[in-house]
Amino acid sequence: MRRAIVFTALLFISMPAFSDEGMWTVDNFPSDRVAEKYGVAIDEEWLRAAQLATTRLENGCTGSFASPDGLVLTNNHCTWGCIRNLSSEERNLSDEGFLATSRNEELLCPSQQVSVLIDFDNVTSEIMRATKGLADAEANTARKAKLTDLESGCEKAADGAVNCEAVSLYNGGQYFIYKYKRYNDVRLVFAPELDIAAFGGDPDNFNFPRWSLDMSFFRVYENDKPASTPNYLRWRKGGPQAGDPVFITGHPGSTHRLLTMSQLRMSRNDVYPLWLMRYSEFRGRMLAWKDTSPEAARIVQQRILGTENGIKVRRNQLQALLNDEMMAKKALLEMEMRAAVEADPALQAAYGDAWDMVDMAVAAHQNMYEEHLFIENGAGLMGDLFGYAKTIVRGTAEQELPNNERIRNYTDAALPQVEQRLLADRPISKEYEKLQLAFSLEKMREWLGPDSKYVHQILGKESPAALAAGLVDQTRLEDAAYRAELWNGGIKAVKASDDPMIQLALSIDQDARALRKRYEDDVEAPLTRGEEKIADAYFQLYGTDTYPDATFTLRVTYGAVEGWMEQGEMVYPFTQTRRLFERATGQRPFMLPASWIQARENLDPDRPFNFVTTLDITGGNSGSPIIAADGALVGLAFDGNIYSIAGDFWFDQSTNRAIGVNTAIMLEALSTVYGADHLVKELNLID
Amino acid sequence: MRRAIVFTALLFISMPAFSDEGMWTVDNFPSDRVAEKYGVAIDEEWLRAAQLATTRLENGCTGSFASPDGLVLTNNHCTWGCIRNLSSEERNLSDEGFLATSRNEELLCPSQQVSVLIDFDNVTSEIMRATKGLADAEANTARKAKLTDLESGCEKAADGAVNCEAVSLYNGGQYFIYKYKRYNDVRLVFAPELDIAAFGGDPDNFNFPRWSLDMSFFRVYENDKPASTPNYLRWRKGGPQAGDPVFITGHPGSTHRLLTMSQLRMSRNDVYPLWLMRYSEFRGRMLAWKDTSPEAARIVQQRILGTENGIKVRRNQLQALLNDEMMAKKALLEMEMRAAVEADPALQAAYGDAWDMVDMAVAAHQNMYEEHLFIENGAGLMGDLFGYAKTIVRGTAEQELPNNERIRNYTDAALPQVEQRLLADRPISKEYEKLQLAFSLEKMREWLGPDSKYVHQILGKESPAALAAGLVDQTRLEDAAYRAELWNGGIKAVKASDDPMIQLALSIDQDARALRKRYEDDVEAPLTRGEEKIADAYFQLYGTDTYPDATFTLRVTYGAVEGWMEQGEMVYPFTQTRRLFERATGQRPFMLPASWIQARENLDPDRPFNFVTTLDITGGNSGSPIIAADGALVGLAFDGNIYSIAGDFWFDQSTNRAIGVNTAIMLEALSTVYGADHLVKELNLID
Repeated sequence: MRRAIVFTALLFISMPAFSDEGMWTVDNFPSDRVAEKYGVAIDEEWLRAAQLATTRLENGCTGSFASPDGLVLTNNHCTWGCIRNLSSEERNLSDEGFLATSRNEELLCPSQQVSVLIDFDNVTSEIMRATKGLADAEANTARKAKLTDLESGCEKAADGAVNCEAVSLYNGGQYFIYKYKRYNDVRLVFAPELDIAAFGGDPDNFNFPRWSLDMSFFRVYENDKPASTPNYLRWRKGGPQAGDPVFITGHPGSTHRLLTMSQLRMSRNDVYPLWLMRYSEFRGRMLAWKDTSPEAARIVQQRILGTENGIKVRRNQLQALLNDEMMAKKALLEMEMRAAVEADPALQAAYGDAWDMVDMAVAAHQNMYEEHLFIENGAGLMGDLFGYAKTIVRGTAEQELPNNERIRNYTDAALPQVEQRLLADRPISKEYEKLQLAFSLEKMREWLGPDSKYVHQILGKESPAALAAGLVDQTRLEDAAYRAELWNGGIKAVKASDDPMIQLALSIDQDARALRKRYEDDVEAPLTRGEEKIADAYFQLYGTDTYPDATFTLRVTYGAVEGWMEQGEMVYPFTQTRRLFERATGQRPFMLPASWIQARENLDPDRPFNFVTTLDITGGNSGSPIIAADGALVGLAFDGNIYSIAGDFWFDQSTNRAIGVNTAIMLEALSTVYGADHLVKELNLID
Repeated sequence: MRRAIVFTALLFISMPAFSDEGMWTVDNFPSDRVAEKYGVAIDEEWLRAAQLATTRLENGCTGSFASPDGLVLTNNHCTWGCIRNLSSEERNLSDEGFLATSRNEELLCPSQQVSVLIDFDNVTSEIMRATKGLADAEANTARKAKLTDLESGCEKAADGAVNCEAVSLYNGGQYFIYKYKRYNDVRLVFAPELDIAAFGGDPDNFNFPRWSLDMSFFRVYENDKPASTPNYLRWRKGGPQAGDPVFITGHPGSTHRLLTMSQLRMSRNDVYPLWLMRYSEFRGRMLAWKDTSPEAARIVQQRILGTENGIKVRRNQLQALLNDEMMAKKALLEMEMRAAVEADPALQAAYGDAWDMVDMAVAAHQNMYEEHLFIENGAGLMGDLFGYAKTIVRGTAEQELPNNERIRNYTDAALPQVEQRLLADRPISKEYEKLQLAFSLEKMREWLGPDSKYVHQILGKESPAALAAGLVDQTRLEDAAYRAELWNGGIKAVKASDDPMIQLALSIDQDARALRKRYEDDVEAPLTRGEEKIADAYFQLYGTDTYPDATFTLRVTYGAVEGWMEQGEMVYPFTQTRRLFERATGQRPFMLPASWIQARENLDPDRPFNFVTTLDITGGNSGSPIIAADGALVGLAFDGNIYSIAGDFWFDQSTNRAIGVNTAIMLEALSTVYGADHLVKELNLID
């Protein structure tokens, strides 16, 4: 607790007396601060109940149990992958929506997984022991091996009842083993039409006022029966009131509030511009392709929205990094911390070289950024089919190695997920695969140059489009049975395969692995060491009363239902149904589905729809429950306002807002628009 | 001449003892420096001959006379507009190339104009008199009126024999009236196939080594006869030798070496990111649309190359601006100059507020950047058809005003060009128009937001795609006769028109004009004043032995045929035909046309093809003659290497290179590949 205020100043750029900043771990939640600011008691029992009612969706989202029978509330946009897999040219669940009128009708989502965090152990000291005295690259290898061993020991100890995952918090300042109960049988229960779930589309994304019914229900099953989930949330019928303290549990994906200046500059100069140009072009290609047929539109519609979301996020993140004033403040805080380290001989001896190590790692990364991105990290070889080929080639080879010597994506702890994704039978659009692969090969040639050895190796004398078309037409990897055959046949079957996609993956695997090794040794190793040291120095200087950057692990955040000042005017924190109908134009993305137009007269125009809160969240929190102080669900987080995007780097309470769907409109829509009274009945409603 | 060295340091970031930096005006060419460094005499006669042999192509390029009969050498990529206008679904001149075997076969290029700078007058003192004592906004208006009056007086004095254009140099430090002889009858004589003209396409663009035959011939006519052009360049058969001093005359479009830090930061933060995202997406849309039919491919092929060129340029310019070290050097130089002004009370009184004025203008611009860009500057309403509508609506209204009160695009001096572009009969692809208009309307909504008043005004309840399709289908503006009818009918005919595109242009004209006015008063006026002051302070502090930023006016630049060090190895300055055939893959953009494959055996594999020079050029110099010290043509500038792109902001002689086509390969291609001996005979060849 030493000098906690100074530390918070490191994160807060514009800090009111008490800020709602922080994505806190459940074991370090600042209940004192919350009690002082909001007058409510959040005790261990509260936190434990919230933890067990919160689920992680392994496609990058959050959900919450809504009944004792495995019902999971999440965002509609968190079910798009499932909806695509269940749709066909004949049946477009995205446009039509979906409602299972009985449990028999609930549809299995191939490859969807849902997890619940049961427990966790701090293993920092074991990791430190395993790496003590080793040079960076060796320490990096030893650390990974140790984490693999700890995971596998944890799973064995539980006799398979839990999945164990190593987690690094505070940029390597602490290591944990997290234990999850995992559900592999996940079924779709309800999804509204895309036109209301994503009403306003990209134009309204990250905007508020807003009217999106971005909700869906999954149900988790065990042994072909609805799973028993006694830890679920009651729903408050009327939603929250303005000023109410509220809380979110969930799995924020990543934030970058602890990055050094050299890391921020690399993001600004290299990472974001390249990403934005690549995906802006890809967006254009998808949009033009969408117009070629209704089937193309079906396949690509949600993917376009996803890409547009990514573009909006990154363009605003880039703007944040281009703000020289904010960057100067960050730089000043870094200088102050370095000066504090230098002023203390013991700290200086232990941590003085940390920033140089990070700078060195960043320089090494910049040197290989594009090659690593396009060849090893997949930017040059997009699409599910090449992804399958790479998983098969790498996975079978890695399984020949002892568990703790493998790439960590293929350890025993990781393999069940890998297999579920690889072997699930799901539809593949060969045309969309060609679009992706041709595009990514062209970008590879553009960014690495036509004379790059990788480009020669992959393209030879072919054009990107012709190569992509040939590979996609000739591969058999769209057939789940063939994938299983190769996977189960192991490295020998893979090497004997005449499948051209497999052969391509084999032919570049050595080059790609060399890039991976170079990245691990020259970038990851010094970076991890440097970041560990900076984290340690933080704790030494400022105490541990703080929160780590987001890592797609469980966090709790607190705040209130509250608008913000926009150009001198207060934005009211709630919207109501009335304005939804006024905003509708009849043209996408402002087109209402027929169900809403028909139900209009029966809907209360004053019903609260979406609302904003000061909660500190980010991507990965999609689908998070918004919980009142008494533990009742009052909303469903699905977005932030435009200022929330800079939250990746710093939290500004004056403008940063999270947006939720009100329980009031969810309940009204379920009963009045969709006739889903059986689901409403399953919920535990309170006033 | 005071302190000339200090001033050059302001421009040179990395300066050898003598740098080849500078796009010099003909009246201020540094012959002394050239004599000292290269031992050659460039006298007034040399400069005058080069000036009169150099042409400006009004579509943004340069050319040079190659015979006394009006033959004009330029780049192939400078003839793409003409080639598209002359092509059809049946006859694809871009793919097939074109050769007129006699003068009868030469094809009129609609709306192409070619100009030659005959003379110029310095009118700085008259402008200063006209604006003296006025506030910024009034001065801005008075300055424009005076420039219009000077142009019109100049044309009257010459009795229509010349076209007069006002030119501002040194960011407003000097004003000139330039007098051009203008040719309106321009015909296509020769163009090779796109596959050899742009061999390597976007992947090789801005690269070297290189093999592009980026040449074409126009011929200018007067009274339906080839114009008499006694000032033309002889061609050196064998091209240049390594180390030869060489010169370029031409019309570099724009550079930004004199911008203040606030201007550079606005480019980095606002202008480039938005442009790159917009055009990356548009590129993707064009690429996907290209695959929908051969006719779509024909229409969009060169436009894709043009867009890709723009993207490569701006992405590297953005990288230059993201280079904090270079920016810090620039900032330091600016601080030094400001300190020098502050140190001298007279200078301080006269110029001390200049930078604040620029900063204020930049802040005002940032405040309205997106609205101005999308609504008044055309980014929200792309395509030729809306462009016609806007020209007709604005042009007829402006003609109701006295000449010197009009927007300067519609003064008497400007109208002939406006009319030639508006009234030329040329093909319009309605599908491509829809693609552009729908895209730009979507981007307008994306960047201004769905609640912008402009977006409401333009879109109403329509979707961008539906609105674009309706407008393009229903307008008659693709008909040149209808355009002429409205134009000649004046404002009354325009207001009575039921054409929906005209009505759209009318409906937003007041809003767009208001944005224009705000831009003129709040941005342009203080910017012009501030920049004038900075330029004056420059001259006071450092003398006038310098060159102005590029403004698409005639410049001369000097240098030598010379490679550069690339990762420790010297790049040889010449390429030869041999490697062209090795590099060809048979797939675009590395596919050779049939003519070259057939001619291969008759071509000398050692023939020099492209070469690099230290010449300081930029876009607009495309098609510039590369001239030896004896005045003979030795090459044709068509590109720069990747490092030349940062030349927009600073010149780095160690790496910045201009790329040319060697006269040796041009001559061999004409006779051996294309059988164009009649053209070779028309040239004046020397050894």
